[in-house]
Amino acid sequence: MKKLKERILRDGKVLPGNVLKVGSFLNHMVDPAFTFEMAREIKSRFGDAQVNKVLTVEASGIPLAFAVAYEFGVPMVFAKKAATKNLSENVYTARVASYTHGRDFDLVVEKDCLNAHERVLVVDDFLAYGNALDGLFRICSDADAEIVGAAIAIEKGFQGGGDELRARGFRIESLAIIDSMSEGNIKFRE
Amino acid sequence: MKKLKERILRDGKVLPGNVLKVGSFLNHMVDPAFTFEMAREIKSRFGDAQVNKVLTVEASGIPLAFAVAYEFGVPMVFAKKAATKNLSENVYTARVASYTHGRDFDLVVEKDCLNAHERVLVVDDFLAYGNALDGLFRICSDADAEIVGAAIAIEKGFQGGGDELRARGFRIESLAIIDSMSEGNIKFRE
Repeated sequence: MKKLKERILRDGKVLPGNVLKVGSFLNHMVDPAFTFEMAREIKSRFGDAQVNKVLTVEASGIPLAFAVAYEFGVPMVFAKKAATKNLSENVYTARVASYTHGRDFDLVVEKDCLNAHERVLVVDDFLAYGNALDGLFRICSDADAEIVGAAIAIEKGFQGGGDELRARGFRIESLAIIDSMSEGNIKFRE
Repeated sequence: MKKLKERILRDGKVLPGNVLKVGSFLNHMVDPAFTFEMAREIKSRFGDAQVNKVLTVEASGIPLAFAVAYEFGVPMVFAKKAATKNLSENVYTARVASYTHGRDFDLVVEKDCLNAHERVLVVDDFLAYGNALDGLFRICSDADAEIVGAAIAIEKGFQGGGDELRARGFRIESLAIIDSMSEGNIKFRE
């Protein structure tokens, strides 16, 4: 998506440790109108997929997932990252390693929120090593839901998670794929 | 807001420990169209307030805050609950006690995301003791931003946080205020 790439080049900052900072429009401060433009692009790519649920993980995936769910007219579910006392025992869980936080955590989705045979589109803001996405896919499988695929705003292609999931047969659509980045130099996949 | 009260009565569950579970439409699974109805109600209440930023805290406040920001045509910022390596040192922080999680945490907002004299509407899904809201207000004060007020979906009035903040002069608008609740019996404030 051309406009997202332009926005990354204009507002993104490459920090040490392969971190791309896009907190000015995507994952700390959020531009709602632009988020809906990305959501409509995702809707156009998965428009024929009969999506009836959107799944993401807290927190920064929520705005885009919410906008995508609104466009499809379906509910959005966000997996939580730890059990809180609001969660019942009746949950699906998946252990994942976090690149950003440097430690493992559990994804948690209440069983009531995900049903067998539902057609689930997974949405997230970033895809790097693919650990969160793989965890969300495992939760869908546990629920006997159909995984339509995943829609991502920014894929860090050089970290390989997206291509690995594609090789396993999942449909992964990223609005911008970065093949290499360093300070002042971001290269997108054509 | 009549429709929210009806939805709470229909889909909410009162759990031990004064927990109101509304994860089927508000804070785990989210109904996007209904969220926008709540956002438009909030817009109508604060329509004259010249809001130019919406502030919330991750994670469950994000969908409503995002929809409110969309309706106002302004950016939404969500405070993070702990420092991650994506955050610069250049942040506002406020220590708050969490009722849900039973321990203290830090709210963190990058200084770039909140400017002096901006007119900030704080949005959250729940208001109980008011600790999170008070923390967000302190962050706004640190940034020399103007606090327009706060818009909340569900206020647990019997826990007193909302009335305490009103007594301190803040404008707090809640779409549903619960004055008492027990299993099968939820009483709203008129």
